Amino acid sequence: MTSLADLPLRADLVGRTAYGAPQLHVPVTLNVNENTHPVPEEVRADILDRIAAALRGVNRYPDREFTALREALAGYLGHGLAPEQLWAANGSNEVLQHVFQAFGGPGRTLLTFPPTYSMYPNYATTSGTAVLEGRRDEDFGLSAATLAAEIERTRPDIVVIAAPNNPTGTPVALDALAAAYDATDGVLVVDEAYGEFMPDDAPSALTLLPGRPRLAVSRTMSKAFAFAGARLGYLAADPAFVDALRLVRLPYHLSAITQAAALGALAHAPVMLGMVDEIRVQRERTVRGLEALGYRVAPSWTNFLLFGGVEDPKALWQGLLDRGVLIRDLAIPGSLRVSIGTAAETDAFLEAMTALTPVGAR
Amino acid sequence: MTSLADLPLRADLVGRTAYGAPQLHVPVTLNVNENTHPVPEEVRADILDRIAAALRGVNRYPDREFTALREALAGYLGHGLAPEQLWAANGSNEVLQHVFQAFGGPGRTLLTFPPTYSMYPNYATTSGTAVLEGRRDEDFGLSAATLAAEIERTRPDIVVIAAPNNPTGTPVALDALAAAYDATDGVLVVDEAYGEFMPDDAPSALTLLPGRPRLAVSRTMSKAFAFAGARLGYLAADPAFVDALRLVRLPYHLSAITQAAALGALAHAPVMLGMVDEIRVQRERTVRGLEALGYRVAPSWTNFLLFGGVEDPKALWQGLLDRGVLIRDLAIPGSLRVSIGTAAETDAFLEAMTALTPVGAR
Repeated sequence: MTSLADLPLRADLVGRTAYGAPQLHVPVTLNVNENTHPVPEEVRADILDRIAAALRGVNRYPDREFTALREALAGYLGHGLAPEQLWAANGSNEVLQHVFQAFGGPGRTLLTFPPTYSMYPNYATTSGTAVLEGRRDEDFGLSAATLAAEIERTRPDIVVIAAPNNPTGTPVALDALAAAYDATDGVLVVDEAYGEFMPDDAPSALTLLPGRPRLAVSRTMSKAFAFAGARLGYLAADPAFVDALRLVRLPYHLSAITQAAALGALAHAPVMLGMVDEIRVQRERTVRGLEALGYRVAPSWTNFLLFGGVEDPKALWQGLLDRGVLIRDLAIPGSLRVSIGTAAETDAFLEAMTALTPVGAR
Repeated sequence: MTSLADLPLRADLVGRTAYGAPQLHVPVTLNVNENTHPVPEEVRADILDRIAAALRGVNRYPDREFTALREALAGYLGHGLAPEQLWAANGSNEVLQHVFQAFGGPGRTLLTFPPTYSMYPNYATTSGTAVLEGRRDEDFGLSAATLAAEIERTRPDIVVIAAPNNPTGTPVALDALAAAYDATDGVLVVDEAYGEFMPDDAPSALTLLPGRPRLAVSRTMSKAFAFAGARLGYLAADPAFVDALRLVRLPYHLSAITQAAALGALAHAPVMLGMVDEIRVQRERTVRGLEALGYRVAPSWTNFLLFGGVEDPKALWQGLLDRGVLIRDLAIPGSLRVSIGTAAETDAFLEAMTALTPVGAR
């Protein structure tokens, strides 16, 4: 039998393993920050009507410029954005891959701030970009001074900052993002995958776009829009930045069906975002429940919580799984991450945690 | 206003323009080798039912291994293929990008045989792979001797051969593909995007897979399946070859909706492929029509024809467009390419050609 070692694989891929959180089937799945609320029936009906229309012409290539979708995304984001400032792809994974293909590559560097989203170094490696790591402040924060100092120390070509951060949930202040932009000659991507879960009065990094052509703010429909299975990520930036991504995108990368599905979901944004409020309520319940059990919970502006003070993370993770609750062990010492689900899922998680937490630890 | 030149674009992208055939709206569109037959209504209904089911769980990430789809693709291709030999992505564009990301990159080379599919050098450039060009035989053919000689001359890491070739339609014999495999230490991709349009008794390169772990045969649902808008490309290879692609694919790259749509179309393969016979009939009609007008038509095993003997290709292309018929000018001297459509589209094309061809040239 042939093995990978028998094939002329690129040298820097040798020994790597494929990315992947376990896809287990358990009653309560809170491991990959999905929105556990299904898309409401009336929204699905409209999406399906739009897909039916798209299927009538599916023998033809899709609109390569996904013009209607870019218009809808600009309308959804607001902030005076024009459609030519929008870009989209099959998940923010592919959006960020486009950024790395356009602005990274051999001889160039990425600066990332662990612990953060584990795919950033993967985009870098696959595109031949070297990975540099910056340090965070206490409690996973990133101040203006820290960001400026780390960028000046490393002189990166691409800086990616998840704001709020995954897996810690930590917010990043706008003045810190502005300082990061000023400190770099490269491009700055602020990944707002969880942007809709921020407090309603917290400004988005979208407000920083005017006059900053090297800044991009990425978003996804996977989380707030409960659309992880549909794969639609996007970003907003200067039209010239978008032109750069157009040079590396594969033609017709967004299917006609994906375009139709996303347009349907965006047409019902208020209904879809109604779920966000409910998730924030359950998040606060979960914070209180975990703190009552004696755990330390990192402040979160997302749909998940990182909690510390766990004696044996592997054992707790397994104990929860044995009770039908799947969460995530990201190998952060003494910590585990739980996504926030429905009220019933929150009940199940907190009940299992109560059963698994030694009374002496409470 | 910011321009591309103001951004820190990767040096090797400077001056490049984005790929793209014009997306014009005209009555008869025969420029990008689409299948002009819409998907039949009963097939669309089944696809829609499957998408409706997928939408009920679209808040969750899709099956990252697209297991059911790989099983269906293996069943469709036959040749004793197992699901672990199958790989799929958003169009064969993305499938081939995975091949370049796994086996190409800086310091590595692609060998391609122009005139051929214009995206091959793009995958190379975006992945940092250098492009080498091999020569073809007379009349765009590729013999075993020519392939072996060109590969030994250039020692490439990746060889891509479109068989049958685009834009010429030219078949490549199996013994030539086997010779190409033997001549290289790198990987060989046989791009059978138009495989279903070959004569029924012509063997596929899939028959070469046993014992050849560095060979991959790529296919697409865009052409025979009339599914260009759905974006589903795939390949068959050794399981170890597929493992290599898994290292570079973006997680969850195939949406739950795309997986459902492709499964629906594959469940109706006989209906979908019924259109292929009709297209071959129109292809032979078009050959006779063009030859009667005095043009030289390259032998084609595809759903398009390259015809030579055109005095002024740009003028003829424009004349056809003025009559509502869009075909493709690929800058091959004295030649144009036309995709084969329905009987009515063939009528329209041949009528316009008759009107535009000087009587003296016939």
